[in-house]
Amino acid sequence: MTNVLSDKESALIDAYWRAANYLSVGQIYLFDNPLLKAPLERRHVKPRLLGHWGTTPGLNFIYVHLNRLIKKYDLDMIYVTGPGHGGPALVANAYLEGTYSEVYPNVSQDEEGMKRLFTQFSFPGGIPSHVAPETPGSIHEGGELGYAMSHAHGAAFDNPNLIVACVVGDGEAETGPMATSWHSNKFLNPVADGAVLPILHLNGYKIANPTVLARIPHDELEALFRGYGYDPRFVEGDDPNTMHPLMAETLEKAVNDIRAIQADARANGFSKRPKWPMIVMRTPKGWTCPKFIDGKREEGYWRSHQVPMGDMDKPGHVGILEDWMKSYRPEELFESGRLKAELAALAPSGVRRMSANPHTNGGALLRELRLPDFRDYAVAVPSPGAAIAEATRVMGTFLRDVMKLNLEFRNFRLFSPDESNSNRWQDVLEVTKRAWVAETLPYDDHLAPDGRIMEMLSEHQCQGWLEGYLLTGRHGFFSCYEAFIHIIDSMFNQHAKWLKVCKDIEWRRPISSLNYLLSSLVWRQDHNGFSHQDPGFIDHVINKKAEVVRVYLPPDANCLLSVTDHCLRSRNCVNVVVAGKQPSPQWLDMDQAIKHCTAGLGIWEWASNDKEDGPDVVMACCGDVPTIETLAAVDLLRHYFPQLKVRVVNIVDLMRLQPPSEHPHGIPDRDFDALFTVDKPIIFAFHGYPWLIHRLTYRRHGHDNIHVRGYKEEGTTTTPFDMCVLNDLDRFHLVNDVIDRVPGLASHAAYVKQAIRDKLIEHKEYIRRVGDDLPEIKNWTWGGKTVASQHSSTGGDNV
Amino acid sequence: MTNVLSDKESALIDAYWRAANYLSVGQIYLFDNPLLKAPLERRHVKPRLLGHWGTTPGLNFIYVHLNRLIKKYDLDMIYVTGPGHGGPALVANAYLEGTYSEVYPNVSQDEEGMKRLFTQFSFPGGIPSHVAPETPGSIHEGGELGYAMSHAHGAAFDNPNLIVACVVGDGEAETGPMATSWHSNKFLNPVADGAVLPILHLNGYKIANPTVLARIPHDELEALFRGYGYDPRFVEGDDPNTMHPLMAETLEKAVNDIRAIQADARANGFSKRPKWPMIVMRTPKGWTCPKFIDGKREEGYWRSHQVPMGDMDKPGHVGILEDWMKSYRPEELFESGRLKAELAALAPSGVRRMSANPHTNGGALLRELRLPDFRDYAVAVPSPGAAIAEATRVMGTFLRDVMKLNLEFRNFRLFSPDESNSNRWQDVLEVTKRAWVAETLPYDDHLAPDGRIMEMLSEHQCQGWLEGYLLTGRHGFFSCYEAFIHIIDSMFNQHAKWLKVCKDIEWRRPISSLNYLLSSLVWRQDHNGFSHQDPGFIDHVINKKAEVVRVYLPPDANCLLSVTDHCLRSRNCVNVVVAGKQPSPQWLDMDQAIKHCTAGLGIWEWASNDKEDGPDVVMACCGDVPTIETLAAVDLLRHYFPQLKVRVVNIVDLMRLQPPSEHPHGIPDRDFDALFTVDKPIIFAFHGYPWLIHRLTYRRHGHDNIHVRGYKEEGTTTTPFDMCVLNDLDRFHLVNDVIDRVPGLASHAAYVKQAIRDKLIEHKEYIRRVGDDLPEIKNWTWGGKTVASQHSSTGGDNV
Repeated sequence: MTNVLSDKESALIDAYWRAANYLSVGQIYLFDNPLLKAPLERRHVKPRLLGHWGTTPGLNFIYVHLNRLIKKYDLDMIYVTGPGHGGPALVANAYLEGTYSEVYPNVSQDEEGMKRLFTQFSFPGGIPSHVAPETPGSIHEGGELGYAMSHAHGAAFDNPNLIVACVVGDGEAETGPMATSWHSNKFLNPVADGAVLPILHLNGYKIANPTVLARIPHDELEALFRGYGYDPRFVEGDDPNTMHPLMAETLEKAVNDIRAIQADARANGFSKRPKWPMIVMRTPKGWTCPKFIDGKREEGYWRSHQVPMGDMDKPGHVGILEDWMKSYRPEELFESGRLKAELAALAPSGVRRMSANPHTNGGALLRELRLPDFRDYAVAVPSPGAAIAEATRVMGTFLRDVMKLNLEFRNFRLFSPDESNSNRWQDVLEVTKRAWVAETLPYDDHLAPDGRIMEMLSEHQCQGWLEGYLLTGRHGFFSCYEAFIHIIDSMFNQHAKWLKVCKDIEWRRPISSLNYLLSSLVWRQDHNGFSHQDPGFIDHVINKKAEVVRVYLPPDANCLLSVTDHCLRSRNCVNVVVAGKQPSPQWLDMDQAIKHCTAGLGIWEWASNDKEDGPDVVMACCGDVPTIETLAAVDLLRHYFPQLKVRVVNIVDLMRLQPPSEHPHGIPDRDFDALFTVDKPIIFAFHGYPWLIHRLTYRRHGHDNIHVRGYKEEGTTTTPFDMCVLNDLDRFHLVNDVIDRVPGLASHAAYVKQAIRDKLIEHKEYIRRVGDDLPEIKNWTWGGKTVASQHSSTGGDNV
Repeated sequence: MTNVLSDKESALIDAYWRAANYLSVGQIYLFDNPLLKAPLERRHVKPRLLGHWGTTPGLNFIYVHLNRLIKKYDLDMIYVTGPGHGGPALVANAYLEGTYSEVYPNVSQDEEGMKRLFTQFSFPGGIPSHVAPETPGSIHEGGELGYAMSHAHGAAFDNPNLIVACVVGDGEAETGPMATSWHSNKFLNPVADGAVLPILHLNGYKIANPTVLARIPHDELEALFRGYGYDPRFVEGDDPNTMHPLMAETLEKAVNDIRAIQADARANGFSKRPKWPMIVMRTPKGWTCPKFIDGKREEGYWRSHQVPMGDMDKPGHVGILEDWMKSYRPEELFESGRLKAELAALAPSGVRRMSANPHTNGGALLRELRLPDFRDYAVAVPSPGAAIAEATRVMGTFLRDVMKLNLEFRNFRLFSPDESNSNRWQDVLEVTKRAWVAETLPYDDHLAPDGRIMEMLSEHQCQGWLEGYLLTGRHGFFSCYEAFIHIIDSMFNQHAKWLKVCKDIEWRRPISSLNYLLSSLVWRQDHNGFSHQDPGFIDHVINKKAEVVRVYLPPDANCLLSVTDHCLRSRNCVNVVVAGKQPSPQWLDMDQAIKHCTAGLGIWEWASNDKEDGPDVVMACCGDVPTIETLAAVDLLRHYFPQLKVRVVNIVDLMRLQPPSEHPHGIPDRDFDALFTVDKPIIFAFHGYPWLIHRLTYRRHGHDNIHVRGYKEEGTTTTPFDMCVLNDLDRFHLVNDVIDRVPGLASHAAYVKQAIRDKLIEHKEYIRRVGDDLPEIKNWTWGGKTVASQHSSTGGDNV
């Protein structure tokens, strides 16, 4: 291997690395005396020591070597820190590059600033111990592990000149999401996307155990990454004198290989999936810390994972720390508390600094989407119920044209775990294809290297890719089966937390919202059965900070269009849209839909008959199937109790139900009372788990009158209507609820109750005999109008 | 390759396969005319067609070949169906083996029974379309994908004579959990565990896309599995005449290799991790269905994923179906509607049938744990607050001896994503080690092939392994950081659904409950920061069927011991135990703790002063930190308002708060009212998100008086007490809440409010200066007793 580094360069790089290490140790331990000008004393050390040393020196090592190449080749590069608990490394490097002081002037480039840098770390009122939104140059929170490669690829998509250096810890490499995310290379287009340079950092140990990948033979490790489709190169050792040249050489070759791959693909067009380079770097955990402390192994062992000496009151520990820090020879590195000029010159400048690369502050690069007028996609609804449509298919026509209008800007993608067509977005395939650079067969359809529909059977990948895409300033939508979106519950958590923190960081510019379409809903998973029935993602979502979460349940296609348009314009939020894909009656024409969605909830006058004196009962509904059942119940009520005054309230924007003190979309009590009354029974048919409505409305005046029907965890493979019956959400149970709750009604409604019981028995007998719902139920629509028949879900393509 | 099959054997096996395929197609399509004795008509076909054909013939193919080996070698083998949507295959095979008719006598071994077999499938009142609890021989629900290998290994642990054949679909192979679960082989002991035989079924397509693993070059695919540590063998083709001998030969070699590996390890002891065989089987999706229908490709294409002809009203489709079914030549297979004797003779008998293997009905094999008396591990608590302990460490001492007492029975394991020590179970290492068969270094500690602590940095693996272990009749406990248990939200869902369904299946015997210890709790993740703060798993859990979920928040070590003992004895539930690991004051001696935990909640008389006339205010608390803050608040209230009558209610068993109509643990309104009053303010300090308490209590009389403090998604790297302050859960805010809510108190408490404000300012100033909590707060305990100092969490080993 030729030596690409002169001895002088190597020495400078080593000095820069020592500076980063010095600043990292300083952050973890020091409270004062940052340059160790005075002998170190206990009082100079923080009382509580929090942070992670183990991964940090490796992160610093990689960082300085990447800097060399950025400068040499004027690279546009960002750094994704998989082991993000190594926060000190990224903060140290941002400080060395000057970015930190630009963003946080108080942490200045002098001794006082260095002291603040140290003091603030993992300190109350300071900064988190992990890489976090507060860290310049980061798009990747250092809390939960496993998403680095997905984020990195999300960032690289449609950024042809960007190289994303992605450090993967060997701990996180054991997680499921990480294990599959290596396959992202089957979806990365060398012509129009950027590159990801994975660097697997084998430091051998997790918190308290060895790591799997550090303990398999070299040939297995190499085979694994060849199997993942990479061309792995190894940088292994612990002696900086040999490691610097080796790393420089290996990284330079990797970068040049990337550039050659891209140059070829861009000159000659895509021919086949490249074998991208990746690097396996094996260095000791806690590299350069004391090898033993108190006779216990530290360097190269799990004990250095966090803070090598927890107890600084123990005699000798302050001295050990002082010797350790002085081993970096700070006097050679800093001048007046500032990195010496010849070292500072090693870092790139301006936006080439990884800590200041605008891709890591995606909002700064955000280009608005060109949006067609969603009204143009309206379903004609001559009167309520007089049309049938598949809501998400209509949404797909709108998304098709959103895609089309923004093709040239390459800033919009759709993501789905192989459910894009199943959830009825297939019209988008008219204008773009599915991204795919793996092998193809002649009869494959709609696959292309430059496809903009991202489909891999991994919710984790879809979520991670989309997050990376949004965090670097682009737009997208995630389509998922409702039940299986729980797979990314924890990823959603982390993104929502990221957004919440960003709202308080002025320099972080707003990014496009993370939009979910949840379809293949609980009520129509009658065919896949119980395992596919779970509407609880909403419950999970609304535990996060109200400022960043929104939940919409449009009752029909036109409302879904209006909501979709809104979501695509929204910023810094997570929008959850719950909408069915099956043929269903349509209720509102476009004007009504816009009005309804803008209000977020409202009385459906055309379905109500309480204008004169107010209602005897409020029938509230939220979600498409509950809306159908509610209206069908109202139909029955009209028949049986023509005098009964019924008000129908439909809710699109779920968070309207909360008080404004709890959620920015909440409506005042006055408005809530006007809609729902304070004293009349409210029969609430809800798409999800019924308790959620109580959780949202418990402060409302009329709360004690609310009786909620929803999914109560009953279901199997059965018919669509039977799913409602099993959970007491069907029209008959709703009528029964009205009878039981409107004062005076029960006493003269025995015959109605009997009729309901008879009808439910007839239903059960019919479905057990025929296997499908009673035609009168299946084809029911408002006002008895004749419309195109609704269908139960059937087998065939992509149900 | 030598031919292990005679032509006659090959023909018989093919016939058996055709029989299984015939029954599979019949289940999907037929309503009547099961043996096609009459010409097939539309009325013989189901009105709604639901089910998945694509993966089914491959599953049948594997099944019959495994049967041959089971018979030949008298193997103890079970079948884990990763692509469990291929339900028809497993049902068909259980029927062919007779098991189905034994379990469901109505589905008899005759034409009438076959008709019922067909009719019931995916039909209302019948059986689910996927492999499900109803399916004999299954431990693996066919709904969500990705867990087959984890389940398979869970089943294999400690079952040395068991071979788990694990079919992995190429769709599910894209999921994260599956991608990492191949590494399970680093934890499987050839001496004392059974074997897993993975069979990757490459059928090329998912719902609507090609699969990644089917579209990488052969050398990459082989390298991938060599990299995962396996010895892959390939069975590829579509001609049954060549595929049967190839499969027979390959499977036989694999089984013999497994037996040789085991024989060597058992004779000579463990020497190194074996390279276990695995099989890649590449066959066309929908194998043997019509190649084209209506000019569209079906066999070998994504269109055959579900039902190859969705619309049976279309002219010609009935004829196509008839031809297709007749291509299996049913007349050669069945006699009087029963599998011909010479074919039936191919299947194993009795418990060797994979559909009747008792390991798949684990409750039938369940051996009770030997449990030491948990009282022996009690922390001495001379008076409330007069002792300090780390609750989960105490639990660890109890688990150590549970482990010890059951070592010889090999039926108890602990699972954790590298957090076992961090969550303070390290004492268990005194009696067993961590399972590990990968490479070791001389200074590694507590690793061994026969270790019973399972630690891989994948919550998915831990969950999947544990599920597989429990479903096959053993016991375990899962220790996890509270925030990251959300990673397995969806897996929990599926397991809870499985348990719920099993409760209604008489032949499924009760299994040991799935027990979680959640530690490293939100209130003490002050050091790792915001990303590590999420107490919402409880919210997620209680949406599942009340009969199968339990949630416990013991306030101290003795209560945790009592709860742990209860969980280890419990059956068919999911128990979530939330308990802290940091040194904390202890409240109850063992007798009190048992009494308290048995009641599930109760008044703490020693902290209350309302005996005479009832309380002015109820201070409710649930969770360890909220309990401390509540008692500290009561202390302050005594000081400031000695006349105020305060009642302290502590809740261990969260579900006690619900009415009995909602949860079996719920207490009657009368008892609830007696504890909480119906008219007095209730200040409720809760461990989790505050809304959860409202969701549980909204039906209670005193609900409108409940004011809940909990985690409201505020936090960062700060001090423990500051975490409480940021979320208004601290003692001072609680006192303030009392002042605001007890009538008449506010008017003469202005000075108290000022004192509280001053104290909170002092707190903020102190932590920003010193980085730690005020000593008076940190060391506070009930009654001002002097106890060993509590510590803030610090750096060092395994924080």
